[in-house]
Amino acid sequence: MTHTGRLHLATQGHTQVLDITDGVARVVAESGVRNGVAVVFVIGSTAGITTTEAEPGLLNHDLKAFFERIAPAGADYAHEATWHDDNGHAHVRAAAVGPSLTVPVVAGRLTLGTWQQIVLLDFDTRPRRREVVVQVVGD
Amino acid sequence: MTHTGRLHLATQGHTQVLDITDGVARVVAESGVRNGVAVVFVIGSTAGITTTEAEPGLLNHDLKAFFERIAPAGADYAHEATWHDDNGHAHVRAAAVGPSLTVPVVAGRLTLGTWQQIVLLDFDTRPRRREVVVQVVGD
Amino acid sequence: MTHTGRLHLATQGHTQVLDITDGVARVVAESGVRNGVAVVFVIGSTAGITTTEAEPGLLNHDLKAFFERIAPAGADYAHEATWHDDNGHAHVRAAAVGPSLTVPVVAGRLTLGTWQQIVLLDFDTRPRRREVVVQVVGD
Repeated sequence: MTHTGRLHLATQGHTQVLDITDGVARVVAESGVRNGVAVVFVIGSTAGITTTEAEPGLLNHDLKAFFERIAPAGADYAHEATWHDDNGHAHVRAAAVGPSLTVPVVAGRLTLGTWQQIVLLDFDTRPRRREVVVQVVGD
Repeated sequence: MTHTGRLHLATQGHTQVLDITDGVARVVAESGVRNGVAVVFVIGSTAGITTTEAEPGLLNHDLKAFFERIAPAGADYAHEATWHDDNGHAHVRAAAVGPSLTVPVVAGRLTLGTWQQIVLLDFDTRPRRREVVVQVVGD
Repeated sequence: MTHTGRLHLATQGHTQVLDITDGVARVVAESGVRNGVAVVFVIGSTAGITTTEAEPGLLNHDLKAFFERIAPAGADYAHEATWHDDNGHAHVRAAAVGPSLTVPVVAGRLTLGTWQQIVLLDFDTRPRRREVVVQVVGD
């Protein structure tokens, strides 16, 4: 059994981190799947999906500072010469994180920890409308 | 067909890297699935799952040195102000690696390379009891 | 329903980034799966899979520069002492990216964005023959 849900989110970019756990859990509930997996996939090449503890220090400061350290916005990016834009770092950060996450579903629930939430990271340099596909496969 | 297995591991943290391939392979064998996928998911937000060659140089030195370079334990983390603890770097490292890995199962076996093992990375700053969910979906 | 396809690629290493989207899409088409997921998994511990925009700036410069910043080829790697080789950085980069990606399949198509391609990153220090397993699970 496969069930597809879609989340639509208005984002601000600049390594904004959004907790999308409730939206993913709602799609799992709608699917009727009791045991299987939920694949969370963001469309686009300047955003990523992972898990973290959704508390303000990590969401608003620490993850931004980490990505600025490993892929600084001010470094030289050949991508920006190609398109005459300013989001080379956003592409690099997104490729590093990856666009997909797979979470087991057991007895109708995501097997997340208490302090483990599913987050969308938007690295682009302008507001976007993002689409996240949640694909639930199982029995 | 979906089969759920769970691995329980006592860990030391501080970017300890544990080879969990045998445990995952045991769950795949128990599942009876011949063709499908195995999802390996660690519960919690200070650990991650990936693959590497399980040899002492990588497991005990190189991966630790890498994570210390990209997310130093001594940097400033707002997470630590929130909770008055010391594991901000552990959360950031875990979010970067991600909690899940999906491996194809073909003819009853994981399609890993000879020098490619599934590893749990525990980034926390104290001993933990970790739970890894192995979800096998297929025929 | 599970369908297995394999892509065989001749690579040059040194953080070569290859767009493998067409090969993955061909396996999905062969599978006959209309709704499910496609798991893309590279065998080996010196390569990774992610998505990015397949334009020359990112493929030939920016991703290489990023990995050289976070895991320099010239740093000290205990792995190289173990095997008397020179690819410690390749293993570390591969573990950071991860060997697998999962993409939803909806109405027979991968849910990728227009400027989002599936790429194989080969971090090794010599030409290789790589095998990528594409596992399609669904209805």
